This record gives sequence, structure tokens and C-alpha cells, in this order.
Amino acid sequence: MANEIEPIARLINEFSKLPGVGKKTAQRYAYSIVKGTDENAKNFADALLNVKKEVKFCEICGNYTDTSPCKICKTRKSDVICVVKEPKDVIAIDKSNGFNGTYHVLHGTINPMANIGPNDIRIKELLERIQTGSTKEVIVATNPDVEGEATAMYIAKLIKPFGIKVTRIAQGVAMGSELEFADEVTLSRAIADRREI
Amino acid sequence: MANEIEPIARLINEFSKLPGVGKKTAQRYAYSIVKGTDENAKNFADALLNVKKEVKFCEICGNYTDTSPCKICKTRKSDVICVVKEPKDVIAIDKSNGFNGTYHVLHGTINPMANIGPNDIRIKELLERIQTGSTKEVIVATNPDVEGEATAMYIAKLIKPFGIKVTRIAQGVAMGSELEFADEVTLSRAIADRREI
Repeated sequence: MANEIEPIARLINEFSKLPGVGKKTAQRYAYSIVKGTDENAKNFADALLNVKKEVKFCEICGNYTDTSPCKICKTRKSDVICVVKEPKDVIAIDKSNGFNGTYHVLHGTINPMANIGPNDIRIKELLERIQTGSTKEVIVATNPDVEGEATAMYIAKLIKPFGIKVTRIAQGVAMGSELEFADEVTLSRAIADRREI
Repeated sequence: MANEIEPIARLINEFSKLPGVGKKTAQRYAYSIVKGTDENAKNFADALLNVKKEVKFCEICGNYTDTSPCKICKTRKSDVICVVKEPKDVIAIDKSNGFNGTYHVLHGTINPMANIGPNDIRIKELLERIQTGSTKEVIVATNPDVEGEATAMYIAKLIKPFGIKVTRIAQGVAMGSELEFADEVTLSRAIADRREI
């Protein structure tokens, strides 16, 4: 945007660093700030600085937290640990009300193409955790993609020798979806993993 | 997002105030900040505060500027004035390289449904401008919608008595588009305004 004045161009540049935001969208966001109140811009700036100041990693599960250990690790029993790729996944699973144990955030999955090996994600911390704790089961809830599957297999191989049950979240057709639109891999998995009713 | 920790929830809330940003997108933006460097967040916050501090309205055209009068008003002849609804429109027209005069930003269009009358937008300032200056033509480049058309008619009626030519940007089929997808109003306007080649 060669024609923008410098302060606006600078703000557009910052907005365009956000994931999935192109020049046009960044421009729209920037102009909404210029049009908005001083107080709104100040609150926004404060929230940005505050989040970097307040947010730490939980010493136990590795999730983002403002108190360490985090609220979940502090209040729940850790006999079942749900392993996820990212902090966002904790929010998603916890909102579903389907799980009431503690989490372990890997901050990534094994991905040789991107040069991310087992030592680059928080697998060592998971092993330490299960050795000291009273863990009975580890649910691996990484994404159902190549990297997520590989990571799940790797973790299962490491943990099983400790006599701890390792499970993987079910893969099949999504609730409320229509069969005709499900992809072939998902459908064949749904049939292979069928259960008696 | 009841499950987010407070600093992240606060940042999500700020992001979701942006135009067209829902909770999911705001969450994605917020996590990208949490994941990013401290420096990135600081620059972002600085840009937000800076834009409110530096950006003023140009005393002549009403566009956003960091120097008053703005660069365009300072360097170009104002014998042709292009009237637009918003500062964004100045950027769009200027990028097209189709116009080399000065602008006048109304900061809105007449819209009785939203209680915006002629006195709520910068029409008075436009009249003052043409009375003192050497203006020969006013091009009304408000949007081709109901409010934009009404505003164009209103401005034309006010300015014509001063002996100044008032024109409206051409309306027709967009360059590079396909006729079959053009709407009926646009097509009939394109035929009515046909020109000899």
C-alpha cells in the first residue's frame, strides 16, 4: 500500500502478520482502528502487551497459564492424561465436556519434513510425568493427520513398557455430518472401527 | 470462551471487535500473538498507539494524514475535486492512476434510515472549498448504491448553481468480468450509458 500514510501503513503491516490476513483485510482492520476511539486502541495495545507479560507455560502440562501450575493441573486428578498438539486443542476438548482429566501439551508433532523430531516437542516431559505420577491411561489426541498419527505411534511405543494403557481418540464420521460427503479414508476407518450397539 | 485464561480471553475480546472477526478467528489471532515473540507484540501495540497519536484529518480534504494539509492537497492542483465517501476510497482511486487531482472525503453518505443527513457529512466544507478555490469540476465518486446515488444528486444540485461542472463516475460492467454474471441493474445501466467507439 504505497499510498497509505506511514502510521497507517505500519499498522496494516502489523495486522497482515496475523495468520490468514492479507493486505486487504489488514487494511480493513487498520481503518477500523483509525476510525475507532482512542480508548479502544489503548485497550487493544494493553491487551497485547499484557498477554506477553502474563502468559507462561504450566510447569506440569505445558499449557498456557497465568498461574503455575495451571488451574486444570491444580484441581484435577492426573490418572488419565490427554496428550494434545497445541493449547488450542485443550480448549476444544475441554469445551466438549467429554474429558475430565489433565492434559499434556506437546507444542508440535513429529514432522521430519519440517525438521521437527521427538526431542523438539514435549515428549520427554510426558515420560517424566508418567514415571513419577499415578497415571493409569494416556489418551493421545493429536490431529488425525500424518504427523499426528506418527506422533501417536511413537508415544505409544515409548509408554506401553511402563504398563500404562495408551489409547487414541476414535476416528470416524463426524456427528451430524452426511455420509455422502465423508472422504474415503474416514469412511473406511469408520467401518473398520465399527462397534456393537 | 469460558475456558481461556484471563489475559488470552481479553486479547480475544479485543480482536473480535475488528470488522468481520468472529470468536474463532479472534482466538486464532490471539494465539498467534501468544506464540509469537515479545518484540512482535510490542511493535503491534506501538503501531496501534502511534496510529491514534499521529493520524489527523487534513484541514482541506478531510482525509487521514500525518501532516496537514495532506500530501495530496499540498502537491496537486485542486481544479478537479473527486468527492468520496471514505479515506479508503482515496487509496483505491489513487492506486488506479486514473485521477490526478485532489480529493474531498465526506466521511459518510446521506442515509435517512441511519439518521445521517447532509449536515452530518462534510458537504458544507466542500461548498466552502469550491467558493474560495479555482475549482472547475467536481467528480462525485460515492458508491453506486442507494445512499451514494442520493448523496451524488444532492451535491450536484448544490454545486451546479456556482457554474461548476459536476460529474459522476461511470457505471457499467466491470472490466474483466463476464456479462452473464452481471446483475440486471448494472447491465441496463451499461446499455443506457453506451458510448460510440
